[in-house]
Amino acid sequence: MSYHYQSVLEAIRSDVAPLRRAGSVANYIPELAKINPNKFGMHLRTINGQDYAVGNSGENFSIQSISKVFALAMVVSLIGEKIFERVGVEPSGSSFNSLVQLEYEKGIPRNPLINAGAMVVCDVLIEQLRKPKKEILEFVRLLANNKKIGYNERVAASEKTFGFRNAALANFLKSFNNIHNDVGDVLDLYFHICSIEMSCKDLATAFLLFANHGTVMTTSESILTKSQTKRLNALMQTCGFYDEAGEFSFTVGLPGKSGVGGGIVAVLPHRYAVATWGPRLNARGNSVMGMRALELLTTKLGSSIF
Amino acid sequence: MSYHYQSVLEAIRSDVAPLRRAGSVANYIPELAKINPNKFGMHLRTINGQDYAVGNSGENFSIQSISKVFALAMVVSLIGEKIFERVGVEPSGSSFNSLVQLEYEKGIPRNPLINAGAMVVCDVLIEQLRKPKKEILEFVRLLANNKKIGYNERVAASEKTFGFRNAALANFLKSFNNIHNDVGDVLDLYFHICSIEMSCKDLATAFLLFANHGTVMTTSESILTKSQTKRLNALMQTCGFYDEAGEFSFTVGLPGKSGVGGGIVAVLPHRYAVATWGPRLNARGNSVMGMRALELLTTKLGSSIF
Amino acid sequence: MSYHYQSVLEAIRSDVAPLRRAGSVANYIPELAKINPNKFGMHLRTINGQDYAVGNSGENFSIQSISKVFALAMVVSLIGEKIFERVGVEPSGSSFNSLVQLEYEKGIPRNPLINAGAMVVCDVLIEQLRKPKKEILEFVRLLANNKKIGYNERVAASEKTFGFRNAALANFLKSFNNIHNDVGDVLDLYFHICSIEMSCKDLATAFLLFANHGTVMTTSESILTKSQTKRLNALMQTCGFYDEAGEFSFTVGLPGKSGVGGGIVAVLPHRYAVATWGPRLNARGNSVMGMRALELLTTKLGSSIF
Amino acid sequence: MSYHYQSVLEAIRSDVAPLRRAGSVANYIPELAKINPNKFGMHLRTINGQDYAVGNSGENFSIQSISKVFALAMVVSLIGEKIFERVGVEPSGSSFNSLVQLEYEKGIPRNPLINAGAMVVCDVLIEQLRKPKKEILEFVRLLANNKKIGYNERVAASEKTFGFRNAALANFLKSFNNIHNDVGDVLDLYFHICSIEMSCKDLATAFLLFANHGTVMTTSESILTKSQTKRLNALMQTCGFYDEAGEFSFTVGLPGKSGVGGGIVAVLPHRYAVATWGPRLNARGNSVMGMRALELLTTKLGSSIF
Repeated sequence: MSYHYQSVLEAIRSDVAPLRRAGSVANYIPELAKINPNKFGMHLRTINGQDYAVGNSGENFSIQSISKVFALAMVVSLIGEKIFERVGVEPSGSSFNSLVQLEYEKGIPRNPLINAGAMVVCDVLIEQLRKPKKEILEFVRLLANNKKIGYNERVAASEKTFGFRNAALANFLKSFNNIHNDVGDVLDLYFHICSIEMSCKDLATAFLLFANHGTVMTTSESILTKSQTKRLNALMQTCGFYDEAGEFSFTVGLPGKSGVGGGIVAVLPHRYAVATWGPRLNARGNSVMGMRALELLTTKLGSSIF
Repeated sequence: MSYHYQSVLEAIRSDVAPLRRAGSVANYIPELAKINPNKFGMHLRTINGQDYAVGNSGENFSIQSISKVFALAMVVSLIGEKIFERVGVEPSGSSFNSLVQLEYEKGIPRNPLINAGAMVVCDVLIEQLRKPKKEILEFVRLLANNKKIGYNERVAASEKTFGFRNAALANFLKSFNNIHNDVGDVLDLYFHICSIEMSCKDLATAFLLFANHGTVMTTSESILTKSQTKRLNALMQTCGFYDEAGEFSFTVGLPGKSGVGGGIVAVLPHRYAVATWGPRLNARGNSVMGMRALELLTTKLGSSIF
Repeated sequence: MSYHYQSVLEAIRSDVAPLRRAGSVANYIPELAKINPNKFGMHLRTINGQDYAVGNSGENFSIQSISKVFALAMVVSLIGEKIFERVGVEPSGSSFNSLVQLEYEKGIPRNPLINAGAMVVCDVLIEQLRKPKKEILEFVRLLANNKKIGYNERVAASEKTFGFRNAALANFLKSFNNIHNDVGDVLDLYFHICSIEMSCKDLATAFLLFANHGTVMTTSESILTKSQTKRLNALMQTCGFYDEAGEFSFTVGLPGKSGVGGGIVAVLPHRYAVATWGPRLNARGNSVMGMRALELLTTKLGSSIF
Repeated sequence: MSYHYQSVLEAIRSDVAPLRRAGSVANYIPELAKINPNKFGMHLRTINGQDYAVGNSGENFSIQSISKVFALAMVVSLIGEKIFERVGVEPSGSSFNSLVQLEYEKGIPRNPLINAGAMVVCDVLIEQLRKPKKEILEFVRLLANNKKIGYNERVAASEKTFGFRNAALANFLKSFNNIHNDVGDVLDLYFHICSIEMSCKDLATAFLLFANHGTVMTTSESILTKSQTKRLNALMQTCGFYDEAGEFSFTVGLPGKSGVGGGIVAVLPHRYAVATWGPRLNARGNSVMGMRALELLTTKLGSSIF
């Protein structure tokens, strides 16, 4: 079986190679645009603890929106389902109307995996933690079993300098009283967690939590209940890919989350977690090579949830 | 195992009994409001052809929006993925902005399981079929292995008399040229398929198609490819429950579809299809007893896809 | 003074002549596209009963949305301010969100000079009149002092054949119960009044009502109270030009109403009414030559209300 | 005539006295809520320089949104019509969709008298002026012929502390690049001009500019061209009263502007400017007593523009 996974990953690497020039690197902040666009890595880790990898799977990149899953997992481990009084669990539909939706629904973001929802999650983390930035990083390091994971301060600063739409969102949430702390503090935390840098190996290791009933494999520590784990997988399934959640649900058929840094991570409950990285994005902001690689993976393994 | 399923269903019947008075019957058309609100039925059919049932599982009710899945399956069997040039595959977010979304996205409905999308599907069926109403009914009868399934003309007429919002949608689609036939003909077909009456047994039998790789179990006829079947399951997973898709995805964890007649049908790929019926609805239009029954089913069987 | 007005109109005719090829004729219905696009006419009538005219001022054209003012005047003469319980008096902002606005405001159109508002007015006229089409025509003939004014049945039929967006609006209003009669009957009346054909002379004569305290000049019949007349002038001022109300308010500075048939009619209270006709429209649906002619008129006469 | 105006104002004071308890004082910032709610003042100044006044017409209050007219007049005097490349001239419709409208129209506010538009005006003033706050104050002092007019720093600070929705708007405009300066600087200027305190006498004197062809009466200085003055009057007519522009246009029939501090100022071109103050507001944010007083004024004088 181990031989099998490795050969599948190697076949995928060949299959996606022709896509190396397709799409474009995120350039809305200068720091992200500096990346070498031709990278590709993939790492799969099973709940038996076996690792399979190809390409630049050990190289760090900016996880961006993938960090929303870590923030959510941490907040659920701290206050449980109470978080869902301040943020919903439903898909958001197209992004064009995020602001009007927020207005219509009185400042309750549709789900915690869109920007507005993640800001509310950050707001709660500031309330719950003594040293939010430090403790969130420790949480991610624990899940990924890697103490070297850190923030990229230049990326965080760059987001802050150009993140006017996020600042608009945060102030709008505050006007509905769904941000309790200082808007600047919430944005600072939000931009920091987006700037976390990890490798495919780190992400696959960390997301094994969601394939493993909420228990950290390396330490056997139970972070989430089974029900909470199911909730987070369901949320990733329906809300993890912005305007492409339905497409990903079909082509890949696994719960997962993407980031504009080019990373995607997905989970087959009770079996494995897998992360891919390819900086070039399609029009909807998801990695071209990553989407294709994961589609090939579930097709070759026959392991979709559907 | 058979004993197991049957005892689980009986336990569920007891567990949901206290909910018998919770929620209210759909009353937006007089015909639907006439139903006895205290019914409850549930039927599970495995891909091995074994049946388990409790309560009013053999009684007919109005399948309403569940019919959208049949119409979609039929259109996909006829023209394949081409249908997705005229209708999307993404969740629609909240219903409040359906019209503005349609305007913003130039008359392309977000997915085929919302009203606007199902109207486009009906439009294609009128183009593809010589006798649409007759042939769709034959298709449903084939899947359900029951030749007695029929339209309820009074319900269809009642929908037509009061369906001004649907008439607005159809005319709006036509103004974008995404309805090719006469608006009245499309609405007539749409209202008719919503009026189909089936039992839990019929629905579980019919939806086994989606648990069985697109092959009709009773005849071994292949209606959909494996890939098409996966697409439809993914669509049900992300779009099958209006504003409650995320909630259903979490609490039940199966692809499925509900209707305001009080029916819900869900699928565990490669394993079984299950249908429930309870006419009283929650605020979001889904059967109170059905939602709870399915949640209990996947909890007791440990058979969620997550 | 009479010499003065005539010479001003002749100067305007020369001044706007270079615009004869600017803009395009409305072509959303085939019947309207058949018009000779190079026409230009202008007619000014004072409250002293003096007439000044240039160009094709005696030629009939389709008044289209100008008819909304006649329908409104008639409904106000019949039921007074009660009409404003079912339709508002505020500008509608941009047209792009007319449907979402209607949804947000529970089926109450923003004002009676947008399509949705005029449909509600038509609905009331059907309730109030025994033979709505006949009586509305008589009303317009009375105001214009011209018994030959009539509907263009081909234009009305053409609107009906292609008016899917209007059909969507009417059904949407009905779903909010703000249409009491049959949707088809309301649309039939609405399309008919849009198809009325009149000349600049007819329009200037008819609109003198609004310059003359609500009294028909030729018969001294009092149709509207002074307060009602002021209300209608205020509505034309703020809502008479769709997305160009502010622009018209500034460049012309008179209450008025335009139609996609190329007509515009405006009023200087207590002084005169003036109508222009030029079939080519700007991007916002208003006559290019008409807008310029009226701007020149108030500049040359120094007679803006501001 | 002078006797006439004064007696009319005194009659109005009696007529509106019963409304003294109607409506509520703006309380969205604590500083505004501190006002004595039972004040009423009115001041009318003719272009002949005659003054008529009743009640608390000499008492200072927070002019709030009335300041948008001063900022706009100043920016037009500096860069002319170029400002209308960055802000529109059309009514905004209802406020509920301000954000989606801004998104739909790519960051161009509908007009300079809504918050977003005034922020763009402030942004230009920062670019054009060396000491914006000081120079704007001098401009207002010049128009009002009163060197004691000043900012209320506590009100400005209070707006800043609670103005999250305005901060959202400013950041949103910045994301569209329609704010060129620092968002904080623009908001600081915006909140300051809103905090200007003036009396009815000051406002009537200052707004005489718009009744007097753009020329300051006391100094004969020409600030705006006749055309620019007409533009500003037209803008006040169609956009000066948020959701009540149509209502004000009808009941009062004059161009004007209101503020949540309870002030309203209106202009009869070529004749007079008039200001009222009454802190209690109706549901749409306009002074109850002020609206009624101005309605009575134009009714008694027969001086509406319609």
